Amino acid sequence: NELTVQEGEILTLTKQNVGSGWVEARNSRGNVGLVPEDYIEVKTILIISFVFDFTSLFRAYCMKLENCSGSRCYSLDGHILSSVYSFDEEWDDDSDDGKSTGGYGGSQVEESGTMQRGGAHSTMKLSLNKFPGFSKTPNPEVYLLTKHISKGDDRLPVYTGEVGPVWLYPQIQLDCVVADPKKGSKMYGLKSYIEYQITPNTTNRPVNHRYKHFDWLYERLVEKFACALPIPCLPDKQVTGRFEEEFIKMRMERLQGWMSRMCRHPVISNSDVFQLFLNYRDEKEWKLGKRKAEKDEIVGVKIFSNIDPELPELDPAQVEQKYEMYSQFTRSMDNSVKELLAVGHLHWKRCTGPLQKEYRQIGKAFQNLSSVFNTSAYPREYTLTEALTATGKTYEEIAEIVAGQPKKDLHFLMETNHEYKGLLGCFPDTIAVHKAAIDKVKEADHLVVMNKISQQDKLIMEKNLSTMSYALQAEMNHFHSNRIYDYNRLLQFYLEEQVKFYETIAEKLKKALGQYTTM
Amino acid sequence: NELTVQEGEILTLTKQNVGSGWVEARNSRGNVGLVPEDYIEVKTILIISFVFDFTSLFRAYCMKLENCSGSRCYSLDGHILSSVYSFDEEWDDDSDDGKSTGGYGGSQVEESGTMQRGGAHSTMKLSLNKFPGFSKTPNPEVYLLTKHISKGDDRLPVYTGEVGPVWLYPQIQLDCVVADPKKGSKMYGLKSYIEYQITPNTTNRPVNHRYKHFDWLYERLVEKFACALPIPCLPDKQVTGRFEEEFIKMRMERLQGWMSRMCRHPVISNSDVFQLFLNYRDEKEWKLGKRKAEKDEIVGVKIFSNIDPELPELDPAQVEQKYEMYSQFTRSMDNSVKELLAVGHLHWKRCTGPLQKEYRQIGKAFQNLSSVFNTSAYPREYTLTEALTATGKTYEEIAEIVAGQPKKDLHFLMETNHEYKGLLGCFPDTIAVHKAAIDKVKEADHLVVMNKISQQDKLIMEKNLSTMSYALQAEMNHFHSNRIYDYNRLLQFYLEEQVKFYETIAEKLKKALGQYTTM
Repeated sequence: NELTVQEGEILTLTKQNVGSGWVEARNSRGNVGLVPEDYIEVKTILIISFVFDFTSLFRAYCMKLENCSGSRCYSLDGHILSSVYSFDEEWDDDSDDGKSTGGYGGSQVEESGTMQRGGAHSTMKLSLNKFPGFSKTPNPEVYLLTKHISKGDDRLPVYTGEVGPVWLYPQIQLDCVVADPKKGSKMYGLKSYIEYQITPNTTNRPVNHRYKHFDWLYERLVEKFACALPIPCLPDKQVTGRFEEEFIKMRMERLQGWMSRMCRHPVISNSDVFQLFLNYRDEKEWKLGKRKAEKDEIVGVKIFSNIDPELPELDPAQVEQKYEMYSQFTRSMDNSVKELLAVGHLHWKRCTGPLQKEYRQIGKAFQNLSSVFNTSAYPREYTLTEALTATGKTYEEIAEIVAGQPKKDLHFLMETNHEYKGLLGCFPDTIAVHKAAIDKVKEADHLVVMNKISQQDKLIMEKNLSTMSYALQAEMNHFHSNRIYDYNRLLQFYLEEQVKFYETIAEKLKKALGQYTTM
Repeated sequence: NELTVQEGEILTLTKQNVGSGWVEARNSRGNVGLVPEDYIEVKTILIISFVFDFTSLFRAYCMKLENCSGSRCYSLDGHILSSVYSFDEEWDDDSDDGKSTGGYGGSQVEESGTMQRGGAHSTMKLSLNKFPGFSKTPNPEVYLLTKHISKGDDRLPVYTGEVGPVWLYPQIQLDCVVADPKKGSKMYGLKSYIEYQITPNTTNRPVNHRYKHFDWLYERLVEKFACALPIPCLPDKQVTGRFEEEFIKMRMERLQGWMSRMCRHPVISNSDVFQLFLNYRDEKEWKLGKRKAEKDEIVGVKIFSNIDPELPELDPAQVEQKYEMYSQFTRSMDNSVKELLAVGHLHWKRCTGPLQKEYRQIGKAFQNLSSVFNTSAYPREYTLTEALTATGKTYEEIAEIVAGQPKKDLHFLMETNHEYKGLLGCFPDTIAVHKAAIDKVKEADHLVVMNKISQQDKLIMEKNLSTMSYALQAEMNHFHSNRIYDYNRLLQFYLEEQVKFYETIAEKLKKALGQYTTM
């Protein structure tokens, strides 16, 4: 049932999961048959989009056109497109070869208010997974009604720290370096991909992973932890664009950011699946570990059964109050971060667009005036024309400094806020689980009266709700502590670079000024 | 034949020069009659424009609307409107009370290419005056064919200086201070005007003049000298706008600039009419001097008969070569100055518009983030939120610094170039007289053959052409020397202020940076 295809032929994909690396496709003559998946190259978006999600693709395409303004063409927001690709993990391979122009076009698209917020990717993953009791929001009922005894190894204690309930932090903080992207290939070179080298500080032994492995890890972490911990989505999968090197650099930088954040998290970094990802010794260990992780049963709301707060039980009112506060805070911060991204995006465009152009024009105008002066044949012209030319050149240099500055400082500000936008976009899902639990416990009195649950059940529910709340509190305190560290570092870096920027320009102008004769 | 009018009634002016301060007007009922001129207030432009020049007024009005963008409303180019008013000197009184928002709207209008260049005002004056032999370009024939002996007092010698032919410069350079604008009134307070105090450094005795007196002086200087010296037009007469004080300040500043330039000119500053303007002791002396100046017969091309170059005669080819060079130079500089004004105008708008807004937004975004952080109830928040608020406020301050900067440095750059644009706009008229003389002398051989002039006449023509050329050379050298001085001073001032600007911002950011805790 194979379809004979020729190089350059355009096919319409009709079915993907036919197994063993084959897909079903239709050629232009209407013949349908199987084609080896690795032979297909995703040439245009519209062919694929037609099969899966034409509307959103078309919308995304329109946006791409809108964002192409002037000399700088912004790339399309990655995860709008990636939603098309994420149905089959294998498709991600193609995005390894994807290319992007970088920049913050994505942010702009979202800020325009027509798209979903940053957490859309994770939202989708969460609701697509088949957890016990998961429909739209994972149902905490199963967990709430069970009396748990935390097992030794998987136990996730919550302590009282200086700032309130906290996770157990390891003595030495795990960290890793993502580096050295290498082009690999399979199928005798027919298909290429990028492999990154990840070196943890614990073993100092590098392991190699492709983007699809990161994606696999992400899926496992969402399955296992997302009810208790917001798992930030991976850097967007980019499809369009042309600057391969810049794209790989940007993706690596963002994967590094994502890995560092995961390493910093005491619960995630200590999990088996994460340890496997960083420490596997050979292909066999990796494959075995993979299988084991995929079969893990402590996923979804069950993760709360591992949580062991060594703290007095909270009553439901206290739990609700905390929930309200966190919900409000994360929503406000989400808005604030988006505002900063929007204005940062504007500023980026201003610096690399009109401002650069304007300083160039000022520079040209001074130099032109100097050229005219030079034709006067007046004997006392020289000093002024020389100085005027130097001034003009200085403004041309300033034009380039202004246009180059965003990459030096605004880039980091945008990246950090972009990351936080992603993280904050995951909170609503996690927090919704808590809201559902609170609502269930509120019903408990009524259920007791109706004889649907016993008084004992009610007490167990309240205890379990308290445990959930401690998990959320520990997680929020982890978030706050990281946030303060991150923004402190970010603002310091940004301001340092800004100071340097203004000082450099002042210095250059001073030098230009020195060329004039004092009268 | 008086027309009875009521306060607030709208009249259409039908005739102005009916004498003794009366005008003829038509009321809304169609009755025509005389009205005391001083009772009329020019309420709207359209009423007057209808009578004089509807088309250009309408165009000007459209432009005014186009220029009103955002928060900053640019005033209309003054001399477009003033061309309507300049038919009768008395009308200028009204512009004494005129108000303006300042700014460089005028430049923008002209740069857009639809209006005449800066010298339009002076061009018009020149061609409207009834000089002997003046049609479009003053005809130098009368002068060329006469054998002159320079009279003692009026003699204008041209010497050889270090830079070539130069005027005779006085030992002490005349200068004056225009200051202290005062509201005066006449007709028992029914009509008000602004009077400026002008104090020359020679007598240190102040004299008072209204704008219309400056305009009278300007007219006399044009009549007498414009064939040999470009007389820069007076600052534009502004009619629209609302900020009286700002307008008066701007006009005074420009009158000062104009007077200083006139004082610096050795021929103008030494002329009877200019001396009268600065030194008259009482109303009687002023009136007598006025009458005498208005009757001066050495006007137009006759001024060349006063010029006495103590230098070897130039042959016509040399004269033409000089003419070509000056013509080319002034045209090129005119273009270059306009380019600088255009980009300066853009930059001004950018700084006071989008850039200010953007820095305010950045400031607000940081402060909003700080406010959100403040609601976290996390105990270790304080230092970061304090620092973040300070950073936000710093960017708000930077917004105001950026918006206020053009007034500090760009203003002077624009003013100087605006002045030069006006001056350069007068050169074509002056240079055209020389071109006409060159062409006449080229015809001379032919005229000799035709027996229309004698060989002797031809030699006189060549000698006179040489004299004219020396006058032009002395004038150009005066121009160059002033230009080099002016642009040197201008660029130094501009760059000094720019350095201060960038240093101030760097300093403010450094202070903001200091508020973060180092980790």
